[in-house]
Amino acid sequence: MFSERIFIDRIRRAAGRTAPGLRLGIGDDAAAVSPTPGRLMVAASDMLAEDVHFRRRYFSPGDLGFKVLAVNLSDMAAMGAIPRWCLLNLALPREGAERFGEECIDGLLDLADATGVTLIGGDTSASKGGIFLDVTILGEVEPDAILTRSGARPGDRIFVSGELGAAAAGLKLLENDAVAPLTERDRQAIRRHLKPEPRLALGRFLAVNRLATAAMDLSDGLSLDLSRLAEASAVGAVIESGKVPVFAAASGPTGLDLALNGGEDFELLFTVAPEHADRVSQAAFSEAVGGVGLTEIGTIHDVETGVVIEENGFRKPLRPAGFDHFGADSPANRPG
Amino acid sequence: MFSERIFIDRIRRAAGRTAPGLRLGIGDDAAAVSPTPGRLMVAASDMLAEDVHFRRRYFSPGDLGFKVLAVNLSDMAAMGAIPRWCLLNLALPREGAERFGEECIDGLLDLADATGVTLIGGDTSASKGGIFLDVTILGEVEPDAILTRSGARPGDRIFVSGELGAAAAGLKLLENDAVAPLTERDRQAIRRHLKPEPRLALGRFLAVNRLATAAMDLSDGLSLDLSRLAEASAVGAVIESGKVPVFAAASGPTGLDLALNGGEDFELLFTVAPEHADRVSQAAFSEAVGGVGLTEIGTIHDVETGVVIEENGFRKPLRPAGFDHFGADSPANRPG
Repeated sequence: MFSERIFIDRIRRAAGRTAPGLRLGIGDDAAAVSPTPGRLMVAASDMLAEDVHFRRRYFSPGDLGFKVLAVNLSDMAAMGAIPRWCLLNLALPREGAERFGEECIDGLLDLADATGVTLIGGDTSASKGGIFLDVTILGEVEPDAILTRSGARPGDRIFVSGELGAAAAGLKLLENDAVAPLTERDRQAIRRHLKPEPRLALGRFLAVNRLATAAMDLSDGLSLDLSRLAEASAVGAVIESGKVPVFAAASGPTGLDLALNGGEDFELLFTVAPEHADRVSQAAFSEAVGGVGLTEIGTIHDVETGVVIEENGFRKPLRPAGFDHFGADSPANRPG
Repeated sequence: MFSERIFIDRIRRAAGRTAPGLRLGIGDDAAAVSPTPGRLMVAASDMLAEDVHFRRRYFSPGDLGFKVLAVNLSDMAAMGAIPRWCLLNLALPREGAERFGEECIDGLLDLADATGVTLIGGDTSASKGGIFLDVTILGEVEPDAILTRSGARPGDRIFVSGELGAAAAGLKLLENDAVAPLTERDRQAIRRHLKPEPRLALGRFLAVNRLATAAMDLSDGLSLDLSRLAEASAVGAVIESGKVPVFAAASGPTGLDLALNGGEDFELLFTVAPEHADRVSQAAFSEAVGGVGLTEIGTIHDVETGVVIEENGFRKPLRPAGFDHFGADSPANRPG
């Protein structure tokens, strides 16, 4: 049985390095950290459930540990925060639990190390159902730099990072048990689904330089997430279909659909006052933003405009429609 | 389907009151809080899994929401911390999920309100297996007041709060589908299993007055938890069987066994330097400790002594043995 003892031992071995701000690590009833004076503490928690968010047949334990942290780090990126500490909860069916748990924690720790995050606690349990895991992430941000969804104003330019639809294209391949020959693009799409890259550098770049009026991460697809940002800011939005950076999908014409409605890209969606738009555009692919592309796709309007997409001069409502694969419980329809 | 929207709406309705230190509540990618300057931030996370930690047939959704917060608050009590904020993750099978989720959140919010805790975030998901839920709790404590497991020294007196074995007796009744006539004691035992009372006032009393050299909560039974405290402090311990405050169990002679090995009492186990022992004893049942009993049950010794129980002048090893009910996945054997 995968037990607390193994969990703690595994983490203690990994936690040999110094951890800034860590006063008391795993092994007591709770961990204790020293918050940086003058910063806000930012907290989020995202959960992955078997056969709702992932299937065991194509997720290795290590990739799963990586991903559950990555999706939480993406929330820190969206807030412009520096991730600092995390807690992991892991419920595993008894069979093979010990090895699965260790590999899962290893995968999480790989990403934690790469992003300066310390695993400070959590819980493990047997599961009589499938695998469930979640991370709670704690980060810090300057009070006047924090990015939220609610600051977009008419006239602001709408940007996204990266190429959209890649993770959804990858999920399609995985669900269909894609076999060789896979193109390099296919493999890239699959990687983007299994191991999303949280846009931490970009989030900090936008926050520290006060360049974004609003921001969020793209977890449920551009159509749904842009609607949420517009609602939170009480504004409308017009995006141009030809400007959306579409990941060249494996199977041709579905590219724009996946880009608009495919979930789990974990790119950033953000708005920029017109006077800062050039500076943001010029930062694309630079080290300051972690090397990711930045594309202006439209403009914020009054709330009466609604959320619309423009194609060949015609506007139509951008209907929030998540990419649906697992059915009603698909990644796109999942909360969070 | 129980969705993010319902989750957020439910919480927004409940969160009408002011929440000190809350800068940005639920509804953005993350919540943001202002830590109190000079305090440590204390974080813990405990999970409840269906048919491992509870059964649906005797846990109402409200009691489950109450309990998942209570077990986390117990960790804050053990650290001497003031609980401030929490995040809830909830995975529910589709059928009846909406109502179950709402009642579960209501139960959690009842206890949150009573203890000054604000629900600031979390996640919901469908579940293809059973019910899984966990809370991450964030609290604050003065750096020089924090209670840990590792400060016990030979000569310190060992105390526990409350009566031990009640929750395990209650679990027995629940598992056996106890029917009327139940005694008042039976009902009390069942209540202690379903709705444990975190000893927050006691934790703060010990911390603020620097009265405890070590502390932890009794989640897995005195025999196992005292061994852990002794190990963390690198000491031995001798307790006297006649001094253990045994909950008068429904079925007679098993009382001491349940008190030593029954899990989930969520009382505090703590050690006190000899010169403070009287002050602690005199605080029993006072308002300052939340009205709970405090009983001296033994003394800390050198590590060579081991962890032993003394009965009629004879010492024998206090074998860590959790109360086993569900089998190997029993509450007593669960990690955390």
